[in-house]
Formats: sequence, structure tokens, C-alpha cells
Amino acid sequence: MTILVVGSVAVDNIETPAGSRSRLLGGACTYFATAASLYDRVRMVGVVGTDFPEEHVRFFESRDIDLCGLQFVEGETFAWSGRYGVDLSDAETLDTRLNVFADFQPELPQEYRDTPYVFLANIDPDLQIHVLSQMEAPRLTALDSMNFWMGATRATLTRAMSMVDVVLLNEAEVLQYADAPNLIAASQAILDLGPRALVVKRGRYGAMLVTHGKSTGERFFLTPAYPLERVVDPTGAGDTFAAGFMGYLAETDDLTIAGLRRAVVHGTIMASFTVQDYSIDALRNLTRAELVTRYKDFTLLTHFDDSPPKGQERLLRSINQVARG
Amino acid sequence: MTILVVGSVAVDNIETPAGSRSRLLGGACTYFATAASLYDRVRMVGVVGTDFPEEHVRFFESRDIDLCGLQFVEGETFAWSGRYGVDLSDAETLDTRLNVFADFQPELPQEYRDTPYVFLANIDPDLQIHVLSQMEAPRLTALDSMNFWMGATRATLTRAMSMVDVVLLNEAEVLQYADAPNLIAASQAILDLGPRALVVKRGRYGAMLVTHGKSTGERFFLTPAYPLERVVDPTGAGDTFAAGFMGYLAETDDLTIAGLRRAVVHGTIMASFTVQDYSIDALRNLTRAELVTRYKDFTLLTHFDDSPPKGQERLLRSINQVARG
Repeated sequence: MTILVVGSVAVDNIETPAGSRSRLLGGACTYFATAASLYDRVRMVGVVGTDFPEEHVRFFESRDIDLCGLQFVEGETFAWSGRYGVDLSDAETLDTRLNVFADFQPELPQEYRDTPYVFLANIDPDLQIHVLSQMEAPRLTALDSMNFWMGATRATLTRAMSMVDVVLLNEAEVLQYADAPNLIAASQAILDLGPRALVVKRGRYGAMLVTHGKSTGERFFLTPAYPLERVVDPTGAGDTFAAGFMGYLAETDDLTIAGLRRAVVHGTIMASFTVQDYSIDALRNLTRAELVTRYKDFTLLTHFDDSPPKGQERLLRSINQVARG
Repeated sequence: MTILVVGSVAVDNIETPAGSRSRLLGGACTYFATAASLYDRVRMVGVVGTDFPEEHVRFFESRDIDLCGLQFVEGETFAWSGRYGVDLSDAETLDTRLNVFADFQPELPQEYRDTPYVFLANIDPDLQIHVLSQMEAPRLTALDSMNFWMGATRATLTRAMSMVDVVLLNEAEVLQYADAPNLIAASQAILDLGPRALVVKRGRYGAMLVTHGKSTGERFFLTPAYPLERVVDPTGAGDTFAAGFMGYLAETDDLTIAGLRRAVVHGTIMASFTVQDYSIDALRNLTRAELVTRYKDFTLLTHFDDSPPKGQERLLRSINQVARG
């Protein structure tokens, strides 16, 4: 099923311990659309300036991404400069130039309004609500946000979170929104706003899905991240996590809790590819086969109970050998 | 199979956001022995002073812990005072009085020397090696350590790690020892010293097991921590993690990689109980049935692939319902 994404398209300047790169293709909408296009048709809503390189437009088109909703406006494209320290956790923002993104109004083309899967990337929650108001009975809506919107626009963000099916935030954002030191308690505060599910992104520590249910084992799903020996650029990890999550759901249309769990693992896997190169470069040639291989690998490396993961009986035998030094 | 533990027995003064407590029963040896005694017979090697309360000795005896190796020495018991901040991560040490522990020499009673499972809690690596030299063909040896021993005694710690089957460290310690920012690369550096396995404790983020193997899915096992809405006192989490790990292995004598994985989950579960109260209080009345229940709950809350965890088909049906807000 088709997926709509609303968010920023940007030009990034990035410094990581692996090196510096300038004028990279970036923005949440870009990352999400590129990754989600591995699952299903994506419709993009965003804005770029007249400086936006034609090659990027051609790249989106090569992924069969619908650009009807991408506005081309006189001026410069949103530009972000950021730096990551040696542990590659939070980026330090060096410069933000909103440019044409400052006046972004997400008006949906008529033919976008019946899109079944809707992802609202991190933008002003007022605009997220404006997009939702234009949708006609979507099957699943989800939003991402950030600490910036938890200040003066907190009430609007609260309203937006109460209107969607799934809220995706990182761990620090959940704790900040709930003003609580404990993640489990803080998560409940967000779930109480009304969404079916909360997905907490924990970076190198994986993710947590919280749903409504009786026992702890039903309400929570926790998963580690895929282990990587080398991370080049963490930019876009959260957006492509969302893309793996939404992409899997849109493809399978499986909205059971079990389906949401597998979607979280798809998000985890997709993000693990993204951070292995700058910008969307690791996703440019990524195939479905590679996704499936890493997903299976992930199934094995999180496995501990007695029943072998489906189709992995042979690999499982290898972990039933006595461990030797 | 019987388990030997060598480490500190202490009297702790603890400040956590939940409140302050003084003269609590503490020390790695105490925590480990108490938790491991839920699995099998434990032999303790440690030292206490003449001030050590008789009630604690009676408690150890009530758990059928062998105290032949517990030395009673003129003077005061090792005393530690620590404080945890609101996020309950690392403790700030307020005061350390080694007292009788300063001259601790772990001489094993003759009847301890054939113990099959050996856990060397965090003490001077020279003493850990001294204990190993007294053992007669143990089935599995493991050690814990800390950043303090990575300075002047780094070479000795390296030698100790090369002599045991399993090294257990927390994430910060692994990064510090390997002087590398990436945990996967840093883990390999420790595994290269010779142990069969490295267990990386990640606190609220769970744990990672690294073994020798071909593919990523065989070499790594990653697990989240059990989600807790309230943590009272994190002291002893690492020691009781080790106890759940060693206890499960000693009980099953299953040294396959699959066995080590289940042992890591037992460690995770045991630690999750420990932190729910001060000192060893949450373990005093903990039953095997409660351990098994939480283990099963954990199996469900980490489950995402298609095959239901054994014996949990009914619970699994509940996560196959469509998620509702």
C-alpha cells in the first residue's frame, strides 16, 4: 500500500570522525522516502529551492517516488550543518538555515488524500495536524518529533500525538516530554494520550515498542540494534528506522502487535544500513535481498529460546556447538 | 554443579532517589552467592571483620551457602558508601574503607579446589590469578573486573582475562580496556585474548554475548533488559547478573553457545529482580517460580519471528490481535 511522507528535504554539511562531507542530500523526507521506496510506492510532500540539484530529483524518480507533492520554490533549500563526536551519539548543530522551509505549508495534492499509510516526519506539530486534517480515512498514521517542539508548542504536539496511531520518538525525547526519569513510566504517559503504539528509538541500544495489553510480555517489545563494527554517519538513522517500520506495515498491511514488532525490527535493520555511509549513499544500491539477509541474521543473533527461528535450523545447530576459546 | 565465588563481602551505605539506607549487607561476593544459591550449591571465599553481624552469617547458612572459605578477621568489615543520581546510572563513591579486605588473601580450603564452576568477582587481578592457580581442572571459570584495574595493573588484568573461559565487563569498561569508541571492535580485542566468551553488561540496555563464530548471527547475541517501571537501588545488578549467568550454566552444565545465551537471559532476569529493592532484599524471598515466570515473560517480550516461543502459543495469540488505541 502507498505511503505518504511529509517532512524536510535538505542539503547537509556533515562532520563525523570518519571525515567531512558538504552539500549532501539530506532531510527527514529524503531519508524516509528513499528507504521506504524499497517496500512500496512513496508520495513525497516537501519543499526545495531553486538551488536543489537536478540529479537528486532524478534519483527520487529512479525510485519511483511520487513528487507531485514536492514544491519547488524560489530561494535556497533548507541547509543543515552538524558535527558528531567520537562516540557518534547526538549531533551538535553548527548551522541551520531554514530558507524555503521556513514558510513550508504542506498542502496535499488531491490525489494524495486517500493514501493509506501516512508518516509525518519531524516538523511543526501544527503542520502535522494540518496534514492529518487533509487525509481521508488513512489506515495508519504515524509521527516523529523532537525536543524543540516540547517547549512553546508542547500543547500542539500533545494534540498531534493524540491524533495519530503511532508515535515515534527517541529515548531522550520520551523522558523529556513525560518529565520522568524512568522510560517505562514515561512511555505510559505518551500511550495514555491515545495512540495505539509508541516506538522508542534508542540508537545503538535498539528500540522499544509499547502497546496496550495486559501483561508486561504483551505490552512491551524490546529489541537491541544490529551490531556494527563501523558507523560512518548516524544522520537519518531515525528517519530510515521509521521508513523500515512504515514500509513493512504498508507492504504487509499487518497491524497486529506481532506485525508492529516485525516492523520495529525492519526499522532497526534499515537504520543499521543507513549509518554505514554518508547521506543516503548506503541505501542507493541496497537490495531487498540484503535486507532479508540481515533480518534473518538479526533473528539468529537475538535468539535464545528452544524453538529454532523458522528456516534457520542449520544455523541454529552451529550455536549448539560447545563454545571454544 | 557447585559454584565457587571469590570477592568482597561489605557493609554498604546507599543513597538513591528512593531514599537512604545505612549498614546494608553488600559486596560482590554477597550478591553473587545469594543469587546463585537459587540455582545450585555455592562456596564462598571472602573476608569479614569482627563487626560483621551474626544475622548475615545465619542468612548465608539459610541459603545453604558453604562458608568454609569465609575468613573472620580481627578488625572492621569492608565498608562502601555510594550515591546514585536521578537516572540511577553510575554510582558516585562517597567513601571506601577497605578495612580487613585490604589484606585479603584468597587461600582456598582443600575441599574447594575441585569446584567445577568458578566466579572471580571484581578484585585485584593478581588475586584472581592466585585463585585460578589453586583450582583443579574447573569446568568453567569467569571473571568480572572494573576500570580501576585497567591502570597500573592492566598487564595483570590482561593475563587474568586470558586465563578464564568467560570475561564479564560493563560496556564502559570494555571500551576503556580496548581504548576504542566502537563496542563491537572493542569486544573483539578482549575475545582475542583467549576467553571462549565475553559478556558485556549494558545496564538498562541489556547485555551482549560475544563468542567465536563465523557469521554475525552466530558470533553475537544481543538482548535488551527487562523493562522496570521502578528501580530502587542498582547496587549488585552486575554481580547478580553474573550469578544468574553462572547459576544457569552450573545447573544445566550446558556450555553450548545456545546455553550461554540462555545464561545471559538468566543474568538479565536476576539483575532485574535485584534492583527492585535495597541490598539483597529483593532476593531474600525470590522463588524459582518467580524467576521462571519472568523468564517466560521475557521470552514473549523479545519475540518477533513467526514461530511461537515454546508453551506460549496462547499468549502469542494475544499479540496477534490488531493493535488498538
